[in-house]
Amino acid sequence: MQIIDGKATSQIVKDEIAAEVTQMKAKGGKTPHLAAILVGNDGGSETYVAAKIKACEYVGFKSSLVRFKDDVSEEELLAKVQELNDDDDIDGFIVQLPLPKHISEQKVTDAVDYRKDVDGFHPQNVGKMSIGSPAFVSATPQGIMELIKRYKIETSGKHVVIIGRSNIVGRPMSILLSQKGYPGDATVTVCHSRTANLKEVCLQGDIIIAAIGSPEFVKANMVKQGAVVIDVGTTRIKSDTTKSGWKLKGDVAYDEVASKCSWITPVPGGVGPMTIASLLQNTLKAAKKEIY
Amino acid sequence: MQIIDGKATSQIVKDEIAAEVTQMKAKGGKTPHLAAILVGNDGGSETYVAAKIKACEYVGFKSSLVRFKDDVSEEELLAKVQELNDDDDIDGFIVQLPLPKHISEQKVTDAVDYRKDVDGFHPQNVGKMSIGSPAFVSATPQGIMELIKRYKIETSGKHVVIIGRSNIVGRPMSILLSQKGYPGDATVTVCHSRTANLKEVCLQGDIIIAAIGSPEFVKANMVKQGAVVIDVGTTRIKSDTTKSGWKLKGDVAYDEVASKCSWITPVPGGVGPMTIASLLQNTLKAAKKEIY
Repeated sequence: MQIIDGKATSQIVKDEIAAEVTQMKAKGGKTPHLAAILVGNDGGSETYVAAKIKACEYVGFKSSLVRFKDDVSEEELLAKVQELNDDDDIDGFIVQLPLPKHISEQKVTDAVDYRKDVDGFHPQNVGKMSIGSPAFVSATPQGIMELIKRYKIETSGKHVVIIGRSNIVGRPMSILLSQKGYPGDATVTVCHSRTANLKEVCLQGDIIIAAIGSPEFVKANMVKQGAVVIDVGTTRIKSDTTKSGWKLKGDVAYDEVASKCSWITPVPGGVGPMTIASLLQNTLKAAKKEIY
Repeated sequence: MQIIDGKATSQIVKDEIAAEVTQMKAKGGKTPHLAAILVGNDGGSETYVAAKIKACEYVGFKSSLVRFKDDVSEEELLAKVQELNDDDDIDGFIVQLPLPKHISEQKVTDAVDYRKDVDGFHPQNVGKMSIGSPAFVSATPQGIMELIKRYKIETSGKHVVIIGRSNIVGRPMSILLSQKGYPGDATVTVCHSRTANLKEVCLQGDIIIAAIGSPEFVKANMVKQGAVVIDVGTTRIKSDTTKSGWKLKGDVAYDEVASKCSWITPVPGGVGPMTIASLLQNTLKAAKKEIY
């Protein structure tokens, strides 16, 4: 069994981006600029946005943080989105989700200029990705694709079993891995809460992608000997052994599953760290106008 | 074994639309208006467009046909697309594919206002469909969904095996049938030319959707007893027994497969006739501004 080390890979990606940004600046090019809109003071969102800004600094991007109180009106937020759409210095921006209930996340997502939609949530990008055209792919699926590439995991003709059909992980992974080319050309099965014989389906997986948000859901008896297991779950559970009082649990019962795998991503340190690397990659692509 | 009769179902859908249009007009509402752009004189395209216009007349829609010679420039075609985008009387329009090689089909598709994109090919509609939001769904997948609904085929928890990953059939079907709700909630496997053990995978299918364009590809030994088989293939092959000199063959070896099925779509008379019904449904939705 070998570990797919997302933390180390994320670091490599960031260093590659930093090197490229240094070159771009040396040639007199524009500094890539990522903006983030943060509404309210949700602890998780604060942490994520802070990490994104820190990562921007690390690779040499300019970053801007726009804060709103959680009673901001939808109109005000949409006006700010429009302002960022129109700001030529900003290459890409994100609106950190979740938003307060009185604001439509879909409306806000749709309002972002898809050419600056480095989160890859705009329908235009989802659609382009779906038909196999260049697009901003959202952070988690792009991070998984990057891990598969960097670790040279074979996908052609393999049976990929995806547990979960969310718009941010399961759905895009099923699309990307069944498309032509590498990483792709896999036979892909999408499972979910309604799947009748989940254990039997999982046992067919040469590659299992667990993205349901149910801690330790995937047990050893669901995994074929030699499978590649990618764990996207990150559920916070209480813990007496950590300073914070909680720890992250994946969707895979790592202790019993790992020994059966050819490759496995740990939690933490697997898919998670790749998401910020993906956001930086997208921002760089936006700055270079690689997609649009 | 029972037949899923697409010809009869298509007729029912058209009659329902005609009745609704009569009511709309009686109330003083606008007549739904579909326009089609046809480039060149490809025999297949001529036939399709003529059938679409005839169907418009049948249900009481207004229709317009815009013709270009096949040496039309991309600029000229794009200018016409823009003109139709801006024409308030036109609720929806299509650009009949394929286009001559010197014109980018993607560029033309992208230029259509997604609110008038009744073919459902614009990335915005593909993306909205993919995330489960209201969207114009393209004709063939929508036609299949309609058949499944009208024949009350159970999909929840069923294993659907889709053979083919095209952007116009396989891909959208895999998305639609794995989404929440009915028809959906199925466990979906997407197979294609790179699938290693296609026969074994197909044998798991409670529902098989064959969309590869390879005549009689699906044999009896690939189909589980009692399966539902939906045949999307329509390959023209030479025939001595028809006046035209050719006949349509599906992707399923109907004669040997049919007896094993609970339900099966014939070719012709199965999925094919539903496509025009879908286009009319989309045009009606556009006229009623049901989606955008």
